[in-house]
Amino acid sequence: MRTSQFFLSTLKEAPNEAELPSHKLMLRAGLIKKLGSGLYTWMPLGLRVLRKVEAVVRDEMNRAGAMEMLMPAIQPAELWQESGRWAQFGPQMLKMKDRHQRDFCFGPTHEEVITDIARSEIKSYKQLPLNFYQVQTKFRDEIRPRFGVMRAREFVMKDAYSFDVDAAALAKTYAGMYQAYSNVFTRLGLRFRAVAADTGAIGGDGSHEFHVLADSGEDALAYCPTSDFAANVELAEAVAPAAPRAAPAEAMRDVETPKQTTCEAVAQLLDIPLQRTVKLIALVANEQLHIMLLRGDHSLNEVKVGKLAGLAEFRFATEEEIRAFFNCPPGFLGPVGIDRAKVRLIADRTVAAMSDFVVGANKPKFHLAGVNWGRDLAEADVVADIRNVVDGDGSPDGKGVLEICRGIEVGHIFQLRTKYSEALNCTYLDAEGVLKPMEMGCYGIGVSRIVGAAIEQNFDEKGIRFPAAMAPFTVAVVPVGYQRSEAVKAAADALYAELASRGVDVLLDDRNERPGVLFADMELIGIPHRVTIGDKSLADGKVEYVARRDGTTELVEQQAIVALLLGKLAA
Amino acid sequence: MRTSQFFLSTLKEAPNEAELPSHKLMLRAGLIKKLGSGLYTWMPLGLRVLRKVEAVVRDEMNRAGAMEMLMPAIQPAELWQESGRWAQFGPQMLKMKDRHQRDFCFGPTHEEVITDIARSEIKSYKQLPLNFYQVQTKFRDEIRPRFGVMRAREFVMKDAYSFDVDAAALAKTYAGMYQAYSNVFTRLGLRFRAVAADTGAIGGDGSHEFHVLADSGEDALAYCPTSDFAANVELAEAVAPAAPRAAPAEAMRDVETPKQTTCEAVAQLLDIPLQRTVKLIALVANEQLHIMLLRGDHSLNEVKVGKLAGLAEFRFATEEEIRAFFNCPPGFLGPVGIDRAKVRLIADRTVAAMSDFVVGANKPKFHLAGVNWGRDLAEADVVADIRNVVDGDGSPDGKGVLEICRGIEVGHIFQLRTKYSEALNCTYLDAEGVLKPMEMGCYGIGVSRIVGAAIEQNFDEKGIRFPAAMAPFTVAVVPVGYQRSEAVKAAADALYAELASRGVDVLLDDRNERPGVLFADMELIGIPHRVTIGDKSLADGKVEYVARRDGTTELVEQQAIVALLLGKLAA
Repeated sequence: MRTSQFFLSTLKEAPNEAELPSHKLMLRAGLIKKLGSGLYTWMPLGLRVLRKVEAVVRDEMNRAGAMEMLMPAIQPAELWQESGRWAQFGPQMLKMKDRHQRDFCFGPTHEEVITDIARSEIKSYKQLPLNFYQVQTKFRDEIRPRFGVMRAREFVMKDAYSFDVDAAALAKTYAGMYQAYSNVFTRLGLRFRAVAADTGAIGGDGSHEFHVLADSGEDALAYCPTSDFAANVELAEAVAPAAPRAAPAEAMRDVETPKQTTCEAVAQLLDIPLQRTVKLIALVANEQLHIMLLRGDHSLNEVKVGKLAGLAEFRFATEEEIRAFFNCPPGFLGPVGIDRAKVRLIADRTVAAMSDFVVGANKPKFHLAGVNWGRDLAEADVVADIRNVVDGDGSPDGKGVLEICRGIEVGHIFQLRTKYSEALNCTYLDAEGVLKPMEMGCYGIGVSRIVGAAIEQNFDEKGIRFPAAMAPFTVAVVPVGYQRSEAVKAAADALYAELASRGVDVLLDDRNERPGVLFADMELIGIPHRVTIGDKSLADGKVEYVARRDGTTELVEQQAIVALLLGKLAA
Repeated sequence: MRTSQFFLSTLKEAPNEAELPSHKLMLRAGLIKKLGSGLYTWMPLGLRVLRKVEAVVRDEMNRAGAMEMLMPAIQPAELWQESGRWAQFGPQMLKMKDRHQRDFCFGPTHEEVITDIARSEIKSYKQLPLNFYQVQTKFRDEIRPRFGVMRAREFVMKDAYSFDVDAAALAKTYAGMYQAYSNVFTRLGLRFRAVAADTGAIGGDGSHEFHVLADSGEDALAYCPTSDFAANVELAEAVAPAAPRAAPAEAMRDVETPKQTTCEAVAQLLDIPLQRTVKLIALVANEQLHIMLLRGDHSLNEVKVGKLAGLAEFRFATEEEIRAFFNCPPGFLGPVGIDRAKVRLIADRTVAAMSDFVVGANKPKFHLAGVNWGRDLAEADVVADIRNVVDGDGSPDGKGVLEICRGIEVGHIFQLRTKYSEALNCTYLDAEGVLKPMEMGCYGIGVSRIVGAAIEQNFDEKGIRFPAAMAPFTVAVVPVGYQRSEAVKAAADALYAELASRGVDVLLDDRNERPGVLFADMELIGIPHRVTIGDKSLADGKVEYVARRDGTTELVEQQAIVALLLGKLAA
């Protein structure tokens, strides 16, 4: 492709609204263009990147034995009512009525549709296993679309759905898809991590997320460098302290904390480690107050809380509710002396193992020190893991210590088991002629999100540094003086033709612009390899090669440049 | 691909609701599966066909210099309000509100979005011409979806949009797209015809439709076999009779027509040609009655009527309105003796040139014969072309006589000119620094409809006869006794491997079914070439080749079959 025949539209500055580097760079490089909130056009340059990602995804799905199909984006409400998700899914689902006032949605996912197909097409165990996928435009009406294509409302997703005879067969299919996902992200040249994950609104047993690692990632991931353990922090178990609770050593006493309303401030005033303090968080579920106790340096894990009995639908207590029960302003709340008949006290495992701790005194400007379970307050009603793991926690597999990193979720695979097949009566006859529900899995990749995530992991001050597998072009030929120098033009045209004939995705930048403009654009849009052709080096029979990733530059014999590029592209 | 690893799902009978052969066959062959009214899943077999069509379309768009992009399916109402089409488009547009109660539509077309992009991206004549396209899922809420993918609500469309500096440059771009469209349908192996067309709701000047020819086509096309003239009957001009009106030869008289309420019945009773009769059709526009006069054998062309001054929004008169004016039941209405001050009388050109004709007498059970313009009734208020052309009409280019055939519209190209660029203020600076609206064209191909249309043109009693370019597989290898005979299995596997290694889209039907079942399935799904491998012929070193299109069968030396197939595929 020649730049003169392509639509390249770069910007010096990104629009103010863009926050993340990838969002800014995608706008500046002209990969995407905003139509509305969470709605983006993939411009010709960006679509080339998206299509390369799609191609790798398709290839790995086909290798894994999945078959591509294409389901409608618009789905009738009836199927969602049958599964119970029409009411459950919430406002992320874009609903509409057709001209006959029938209810439809723009499919945010396709479990219902594929299960409807399977129940009518699959009758016998002889037809199983089956695995179908599609690459399709989805819509989720995010409350606050942001980060460009990373949290857009309309996006491209690859969703696959598998059908098996039993849990063991599903596990095998699932393992194959896990491998296929690993292959996709490896081939795309991304640093990624697969972690055990919560199943959320999709449901089922067992699930893994695939994350592109990046400092700006929305998800925190816990992994053990000395073992295989890796999980989303939402899910990672905080193991119970190994040592038993120590016996009380201090007397309980009031300490004056006139302005200290946080554990950090109290610890600083008292000159004690933050790990000696305990904080209190009040929740309401089923119209009852629940008091959560966490160590001062820990944070509440809402996913874990939501899984406790009676807390499936909790909310944070209002200040009015807090004052009504404690008769004390937030900042000084504590569990000692409260009416335990009216609340459920839930202590994190770590807190349950603490002694001589510091906690609010339930009166303004005071905390209590030297507090002990059993002596100063009755044991908690529930002891549970309700906190997020932190750097240095023991790994749940007992094989080391956890570290935390950040990631962008680009894939998620689920063992749905029979959740949908039972709801929609999707059954098959087994070898004994018994009717059984199919065992299902579902497997999603955020195809368009991958582009943003890849950039979030691969950029510098000059712009995007695309991995070769997803670069819009892999080689830029940049002549200096294409319109002016016959020799430069001839050399550039010849190199361009030679590379194109060998199937290289080459861009010849034949624009009549200053070299600085050409170089900056090629760097901004992230082309991995650049060859600069100018009169001066050409006089010595040489051209200049520049690697986008590390900026290394070398003068190369004109005759050797094709072999050099082919070698780098093959690597 | 091996059938055992693919999802083939054929039916003996098509569901009752399917009317057209293509719809029945697509369901029976398992190319598509219905989700709801006008909503179809493309099953793996069908998607292979759709993708082959897409690939040819993309390739020809790229060759024509168009650049692929991907715009959002969901579009904000504001742009459509700016162009005026939010109110105009009617109930075919699927509208919805997001969670913030803002109005959106599922884009039925993308003129507004692309014009919005162009007005912000294109500033100078130096950037033009530009031509963008996308292959995308569209939605049109048809009042009565039918014919499977041919009139579905959700469908795949290729839409392109061009921007030029002036009308001459647009005409050049348009000619290039006309050629690219011709190339697409030629490469797909379809009999098609390009015809001049009405611009309809899209608007602009000048337009051509591309039709796949098929007896079941919804459109009637007029063409002149001895010249280049071809137009949709909606648009084709019925030329004025060459001969001047003859002088009256008969006296006007009542003729008794007790039960004859149609021209056909009257002509039969009086034993005269239908061409001597005149019929009357009453329309209402702007609250005024309009009376159309047509020759008995002609039919009203509503598109032409809609273009007459004052008739842009007409409707047919109700029986009450007719009785109120004529005081006579329909079937005997006529133009003689009516109160001409209260109506507009519009005569088709052919009727205006008739003399001594027969028409209703405005009294029950009577017609008038020997009626003449000027003598028996005043000349018509308007003489115009308001009828559909028929076989044998003169060609408007004067170079022959028209014939009529039927077609399925699969492509439509428009010279929009400045309709959208003016509405959305999409301008550029010309070489003199003057701000001018861009000249636009738009170009659509019904990608998914092509599959249905191709089948409508290519089927027989055994099933689909896909042109090779769009067949899901091009060669079927069908072993007779694959599970039973080592020799058959070895020969089939070897042929399959050899063809696959040469890039042939080959399907090895390794199912353990009776040969009749295998043959019937391969014929139903329309694979152009089949090789049958059985013990008997194999003993003589031979295999059987069968051509799907004409059923010709030949025994071929085992060593010669690959060369034979490659030769046929290259042809």
